[in-house]
Amino acid sequence: MSSSPNNGRIERWGLFELTLAGPAAGNPYKDVAVSACFRHRHRSLEVTGFYDGDGSYKIRFMPDIEGVWTYTVSSSHAELSGAAGQFVCTPAKEGNHGPVRVRDETHFEYEDGTEYHPFGTTCYAWIHQEEELQEETLSTLRQGPFNKIRMCLFPKRYSFNANEPEHFPFAGSKAEGFDWECFNPAYFANLEKRILQLGELGIEADLILFHPYDMGHWGFDRMAAETDDFYLRYVIARLGAYRNVWWSLANEFDFMKEKVMSDWDRLFRVVVESDPYQRLRSIHNGSSMYNPGGIIYYDHTKPWVTHVSMQHWDVTLMRSWLALYRKPVVVDECCYEGNLPQRWGNISGEEMTAKFWDCFARGGYGGHGETFMHPDNVIWWARGGKLYGDSPQRLAFMRSILDEAPAWLRPQERFRDVPTVGIENVYYLQYYNNHRPAYRELPLPEGGRYQIDLIDTWNMTITPLEGTYSGVAGIAMPGRPYMAVRVRAI
Amino acid sequence: MSSSPNNGRIERWGLFELTLAGPAAGNPYKDVAVSACFRHRHRSLEVTGFYDGDGSYKIRFMPDIEGVWTYTVSSSHAELSGAAGQFVCTPAKEGNHGPVRVRDETHFEYEDGTEYHPFGTTCYAWIHQEEELQEETLSTLRQGPFNKIRMCLFPKRYSFNANEPEHFPFAGSKAEGFDWECFNPAYFANLEKRILQLGELGIEADLILFHPYDMGHWGFDRMAAETDDFYLRYVIARLGAYRNVWWSLANEFDFMKEKVMSDWDRLFRVVVESDPYQRLRSIHNGSSMYNPGGIIYYDHTKPWVTHVSMQHWDVTLMRSWLALYRKPVVVDECCYEGNLPQRWGNISGEEMTAKFWDCFARGGYGGHGETFMHPDNVIWWARGGKLYGDSPQRLAFMRSILDEAPAWLRPQERFRDVPTVGIENVYYLQYYNNHRPAYRELPLPEGGRYQIDLIDTWNMTITPLEGTYSGVAGIAMPGRPYMAVRVRAI
Repeated sequence: MSSSPNNGRIERWGLFELTLAGPAAGNPYKDVAVSACFRHRHRSLEVTGFYDGDGSYKIRFMPDIEGVWTYTVSSSHAELSGAAGQFVCTPAKEGNHGPVRVRDETHFEYEDGTEYHPFGTTCYAWIHQEEELQEETLSTLRQGPFNKIRMCLFPKRYSFNANEPEHFPFAGSKAEGFDWECFNPAYFANLEKRILQLGELGIEADLILFHPYDMGHWGFDRMAAETDDFYLRYVIARLGAYRNVWWSLANEFDFMKEKVMSDWDRLFRVVVESDPYQRLRSIHNGSSMYNPGGIIYYDHTKPWVTHVSMQHWDVTLMRSWLALYRKPVVVDECCYEGNLPQRWGNISGEEMTAKFWDCFARGGYGGHGETFMHPDNVIWWARGGKLYGDSPQRLAFMRSILDEAPAWLRPQERFRDVPTVGIENVYYLQYYNNHRPAYRELPLPEGGRYQIDLIDTWNMTITPLEGTYSGVAGIAMPGRPYMAVRVRAI
Repeated sequence: MSSSPNNGRIERWGLFELTLAGPAAGNPYKDVAVSACFRHRHRSLEVTGFYDGDGSYKIRFMPDIEGVWTYTVSSSHAELSGAAGQFVCTPAKEGNHGPVRVRDETHFEYEDGTEYHPFGTTCYAWIHQEEELQEETLSTLRQGPFNKIRMCLFPKRYSFNANEPEHFPFAGSKAEGFDWECFNPAYFANLEKRILQLGELGIEADLILFHPYDMGHWGFDRMAAETDDFYLRYVIARLGAYRNVWWSLANEFDFMKEKVMSDWDRLFRVVVESDPYQRLRSIHNGSSMYNPGGIIYYDHTKPWVTHVSMQHWDVTLMRSWLALYRKPVVVDECCYEGNLPQRWGNISGEEMTAKFWDCFARGGYGGHGETFMHPDNVIWWARGGKLYGDSPQRLAFMRSILDEAPAWLRPQERFRDVPTVGIENVYYLQYYNNHRPAYRELPLPEGGRYQIDLIDTWNMTITPLEGTYSGVAGIAMPGRPYMAVRVRAI
């Protein structure tokens, strides 16, 4: 009646999955409720299961404490109710740091206490491509610097990207119509495989739950409110236990003209109520330079928003966003490296890289995307495939510098006109972008002894300056753009 | 008793100057009022004169209508009162287009109807340098693309610029103290010579009446309110008749901590009341990226502000400023080309040039400054001298393109994501800056026939595309930054 994999041993933050046989008649997606209560000592969590087709029901659970967990199943259907069992949660294996949380207002950390610096990229519709291309995308990700990916659950229909996918979240098809009360297990099986594979690569899956790139073609952008909620609850029951899942309520939510702001509030509430793990939650705005009313932002100060997923071309506004929202800010879209005709898709590798540094040096995080013209329209930002740009290797270089840095860097007011993060008296990292001084006087703390490195973020060189410094440190600089300066206490 | 130069003939918008001998005893600056009423047919203007030292009084007047003008002098002192005379206002000579005014909300025009596109530069303290350097500055300006210069009346004390000037607006000196009730005619004689020389070069003198770069050293930044007003009235009486004068109430007014906002309102009122010509009036804010309260702007919607003199590093905000103020917007400081350590003074020539294009393509205007390190600290932005940067020749190229364009270009909504100015159906000019598409589809009007040029604003080339276009025009683009596209109806 039930199966418990892994011989009853699940690593911490791993995925426990219970499969139960049950009724297949009627519409079990709608009609059958199943859940389990998981207990460790005095701790208990109520976890919702889901119907996976063919009379099969599943309950997934992510244990977060080592030791013995027990569970008992409840259901509206007698056949499923009453199942019980236990498993042992073992220590996390190497590379498994747990899910990502918010720490100290504006930082992210893995649950094991390791800092997480998001280096995200964007492949909206990569899981809706043919198998071979999905594998190629994974292979590219394996070699790249990225530890987060933005991806859509619904397929995408947009410029350079009008191919019909094989599977949809809902049962049915464009031709025959979709059954808004039945899901498609084959679709989810592939999605889950991809989420697991991303997890193995250390990549967070920033799942976009709704988006406007449909325009009524399939109708996923204009479902009834109860269908939206039904879909959300199913998705969360299926995917919530994967430790590398983030919830992005929507991409460019403001471009979805069929919804109003209160719909987004309601959908956030559904997520908050359904997700026993309280995974990261945000929502991503669109932007238009020429919208006379300016950008329409979701109010990220609302308590159910865990972090800000910003779209804005001017990342130098970072400090004002941090001051306003007091949450981590990720500029998930700040234009993409490439050469598309569209304004958002044709900046240089220099600028893409600079935006990451500009964000980080102000206390926030950038986001990558790539949009080079391609003979078959296989463009990374939508379909995945290969990367052709100049920024990924520079982002890897940047990541290597942050990996060496102490954790929890914060904006430093000591350096007035160059954005700088650091830890007072210990470490400073400042970024000059397009500013190219011939020299600088760094007002370092008196009494300390510091070593200074000039970092060329574009040419990927680190040049230690001779000697040590204390107090006001006059340093010659090369007069080139894209320089960073690193100061470390000895 | 009086002299009327030029044999009684003054060109339109030229400078008529009447010199009268009068009392030298006491303090004529304070004690003697003199003015004249100038009449042409039914038009009359009351113009205030000023004491020029040594018992000499002057009344200056700019006639703006051709024909016979008469005048009669009034004074609080009998010796000056009652003088009368006439002169003939002759047609303006070539190159004399009259003073600059605001036209159609967001444009500038010379009074003869010619459009004026400001291409301003900044030499704050050039008139406070030794004679030879002032001459060198003029010689540089003669060869350059600039038709406006921002310059301070009070001397400047700031980084790279701590030399004491020979003359001050007020009588006295730093060592002996200044006489706040007496002016220094020698100072003004030099200033007026320079304003005239600028006028001959077709350069508007954007005169900065107050500024904070004093910090109490001389005390011009913290004079009593009545001294401020006294100074302003004298300056306007002396300089108002020069057709190329603009009034900039202050530079970085918000950095003058001894004044509050109502002081600026009062000073604007003094200018409005004193200036019979209603020359252009604005005030320039400072900015700090790290001011937690953001930039402090003067409310440019106030009716006495003729145009916006903005300081901001992000000129892509232009459209919002135009929408807010509905006045011409000149970003007089948007960072300077150079290599100073200060953030505002070390951008590249590429970026300086791009900022001009970015402003113009959105319906506004940029501003130039140059700040390269110099062995003797002779830096253009403060002291003048030579230009070393890469942007001036590109600005000359840009100016040549605008000179060929039809007048009164306005932002065009037809081109959604690339800033474009033009005249619907006739002319479009769009600028791509850092965006480097491989192709674009331009939604040109159906039915028209258009010729398209690719303009490389950095390499200063204009490449006409073959053939003519109508409706949606697909064009290949070179994938380089700093491109502009020009579309002209045939």
